[in-house]
Amino acid sequence: MAEELGVQTKRSENFSDWYLEVVRKGDFIDQRSPIKGFDVITPWGYAVWEKIQQHFDSLIKQGGVVNAYFPLFIPENLIKKEEEHFAGFKAETFAVTEAGGEKLEERLFVRPTSETIMYYMYALWIRSHKDLPLRINQWNNVVRFDTKGTKPFIRGREFLWQEAHTAHATQQEADEQVKQAVETYEQSMEKQAIEPLLLVRPKSDTFAGANYSVVMDCLTQDGKVVQGPGTHMLGQNFSKPFNITFLDEKGQQQHVWQTSWGMTTRMIGLNVMQHGDDKGAVLPPEIAPIQVAIVPIMFTGKEDEIKKACESVKENLEKLKLRVHVDYRDYSPGFKFNHWELRGVPVRVEIGPKDVEAGVVTVVKRVDGVKKPIEMAKLREIRKMLKQIQKEMLKKSKKFLRDNTQDARELEKIKNSFGFSRANWCGSAECEKNLKAETGGYEIRGTLYGKKEKPFGPCIQCGKKAEQVVYIAKAY
Amino acid sequence: MAEELGVQTKRSENFSDWYLEVVRKGDFIDQRSPIKGFDVITPWGYAVWEKIQQHFDSLIKQGGVVNAYFPLFIPENLIKKEEEHFAGFKAETFAVTEAGGEKLEERLFVRPTSETIMYYMYALWIRSHKDLPLRINQWNNVVRFDTKGTKPFIRGREFLWQEAHTAHATQQEADEQVKQAVETYEQSMEKQAIEPLLLVRPKSDTFAGANYSVVMDCLTQDGKVVQGPGTHMLGQNFSKPFNITFLDEKGQQQHVWQTSWGMTTRMIGLNVMQHGDDKGAVLPPEIAPIQVAIVPIMFTGKEDEIKKACESVKENLEKLKLRVHVDYRDYSPGFKFNHWELRGVPVRVEIGPKDVEAGVVTVVKRVDGVKKPIEMAKLREIRKMLKQIQKEMLKKSKKFLRDNTQDARELEKIKNSFGFSRANWCGSAECEKNLKAETGGYEIRGTLYGKKEKPFGPCIQCGKKAEQVVYIAKAY
Repeated sequence: MAEELGVQTKRSENFSDWYLEVVRKGDFIDQRSPIKGFDVITPWGYAVWEKIQQHFDSLIKQGGVVNAYFPLFIPENLIKKEEEHFAGFKAETFAVTEAGGEKLEERLFVRPTSETIMYYMYALWIRSHKDLPLRINQWNNVVRFDTKGTKPFIRGREFLWQEAHTAHATQQEADEQVKQAVETYEQSMEKQAIEPLLLVRPKSDTFAGANYSVVMDCLTQDGKVVQGPGTHMLGQNFSKPFNITFLDEKGQQQHVWQTSWGMTTRMIGLNVMQHGDDKGAVLPPEIAPIQVAIVPIMFTGKEDEIKKACESVKENLEKLKLRVHVDYRDYSPGFKFNHWELRGVPVRVEIGPKDVEAGVVTVVKRVDGVKKPIEMAKLREIRKMLKQIQKEMLKKSKKFLRDNTQDARELEKIKNSFGFSRANWCGSAECEKNLKAETGGYEIRGTLYGKKEKPFGPCIQCGKKAEQVVYIAKAY
Repeated sequence: MAEELGVQTKRSENFSDWYLEVVRKGDFIDQRSPIKGFDVITPWGYAVWEKIQQHFDSLIKQGGVVNAYFPLFIPENLIKKEEEHFAGFKAETFAVTEAGGEKLEERLFVRPTSETIMYYMYALWIRSHKDLPLRINQWNNVVRFDTKGTKPFIRGREFLWQEAHTAHATQQEADEQVKQAVETYEQSMEKQAIEPLLLVRPKSDTFAGANYSVVMDCLTQDGKVVQGPGTHMLGQNFSKPFNITFLDEKGQQQHVWQTSWGMTTRMIGLNVMQHGDDKGAVLPPEIAPIQVAIVPIMFTGKEDEIKKACESVKENLEKLKLRVHVDYRDYSPGFKFNHWELRGVPVRVEIGPKDVEAGVVTVVKRVDGVKKPIEMAKLREIRKMLKQIQKEMLKKSKKFLRDNTQDARELEKIKNSFGFSRANWCGSAECEKNLKAETGGYEIRGTLYGKKEKPFGPCIQCGKKAEQVVYIAKAY
């Protein structure tokens, strides 16, 4: 489908152009849809999403969360109810005003997120403490009228995600749920071989209606951060206006405590940014839709023999539960190497007449290009190799985060910095604003989640007493 | 969540009310959302959908179809392009006219189906015969401004579905794809223990833009039909206006041949209608999210012992790859029996002190209420039992279709008939219209797909020479 010309831009030259080229040529996404900001997630990108999805879905189900589906449209009165209590998403919504050619009586907003419509139903469903906890997840699409420009997967007007919404009898149980959700995201990130920084966002960047938000910030190769999965402690901020109450064991009417948490298709782009190289994407084996691409090196007169070897290798690798594809297309081997490299398939297996003769296959690791023969009888080594690759990719991500998190005692050190700066902050909104302006866009991303750090100096901005240690970076 | 009071309405009294009660109380759907016609698919209903989905998704992937995701909104110009060539979906759409509080320059339609936006992209992607066949599926949500009233799952303004869209080099390959899609749907229906009638729709009811439509009509217990999955041969009707061309092997520019096919969440409701009884839903084991519900019969002093037995039975059944749930909730056994009966769980296992003592469990089949003890050491029998239930449910559905398909030679026989009437038709649109009016709503649903039947008399409406044997029924 896409022209396969290899990647022309080097990361070091222009990271942004490199990224655009890889996601487009690697069949992750197509931005040429007829509506600006609404991209097509093409088959390979979607298949990566399915892998992330399957793993996460089975994790949350083990944890007792159930899936459901709520309407796409939210009537204006619900959005207004939210707005009365805190600035919600209204400014970012698309509004439906006509149906069947006629004007509607009430405007319908296309969901930017589903708190309001789900909690309207929660108020009908929850009666007694026996109905709690209620823990429901949705896999759906949301749209937001984002005016900050678009970047495939990272910033778009429509994305796919899961949004889980839970209701609990006590604050403590809701806090516990936040912790559990964060742990589940940690497991997902491990599958994706990405080491995130777990931060509690400052007030300015807390989710509308949340007491606190725990977000995973992920460092990309160009030293910026992409916001990953987010978990929000909603307290009783929604249950009060939406009147979600229950009778506790003593027969007292109480408002529920709530959490919400989501992970989006942004993760597909983040994986490309994190792991890619100048040849294209490099996918962690655990989320690679195809883990082993077999490329037959055909020679006239040897076709049957080679095909037979390919099928046998495929079959044996599938018995080892690996995801394998043989590329029989009518293209040159070089074209095919390029094709699978671009897409980031972890291991390529080449099988030519010489390999067949010697009873081996030639195995090439995507991550470092290292090539070696493996005996047909020892294909199990490929499985080991994939496990090793996964481990090393995660190790590399951990090292990258560690190596690019530096303590900063002066603003100067933050300007033009790469990665995270660890600094002291007095906690004032003014310092936060000034810091961003004076450093050319570096932001206070938050404090560590689950670990209180003692300030190691005065506020980096005003020099007064610091209240907390914060992490500062430039974000996508 | 839902009040569990058992089903009050009998099917024989009022089938429609019975259905509404079962889907609501059985946690399949909730119609109390704040927008008319947009229902909430509640956890149990959604879990049934996931089962249908997983099975179908793996089937189409084996067949080489890939998944992707296309934008929710379709710009007005694409919808207009479709309208110029054939009456499309415009009259049924919801239109977005505002974003971020501002009026949009061009109206955006919320997808009622994705032909137009997908084919806009296909025109960009397809260049050479090497790009064919292109076979892409989407799992998504669509909305239609249906004004014919609503019925949960069966007729609503938003539903979930899969829509597959394929492009081929020749007409023959596209016809072959139709056949293959129909076979895949047959496999899905078998999992759902529903025997459909495969019909080619008359011209009047063919999908807009299709040369022919193959649709599965399914008979419900009240003798009407619900339209199941549909497969459409689109010919070159879209590829010409959308300019989807390729260079064939001889270097000639050609338009592609296309098919599209879909199955929706309507199937959830259809399963309830097909298999349910006066106690609630009855789910075929293959698509039941829980196949065995274990209900502990607690006795003071014996709790630990009973719990231990429940856990051991669960573990052993899970080893047999069955989907099992132990219901430890703080409710009476009777309440729980009712709860799982309503939801249609195929097998209930009761474990009380007497059972533990005797080394047995008490097994109750949902389909007929038959109760019998099974030795703890012979739990494998439950797996056999489930296979048997599945087989018998399908057999019953086949028999029901066979028993309720009668030849009709006069209009009188069709009026107030139950199920399908098999009749002769001259093929004229006028007779089709008159027949519907004179019989009080019975419709010509189509001719058998894949089997040409010879007329056995003159046209049932006008008495002139008949061209085809058609199947007539009242539809939901």
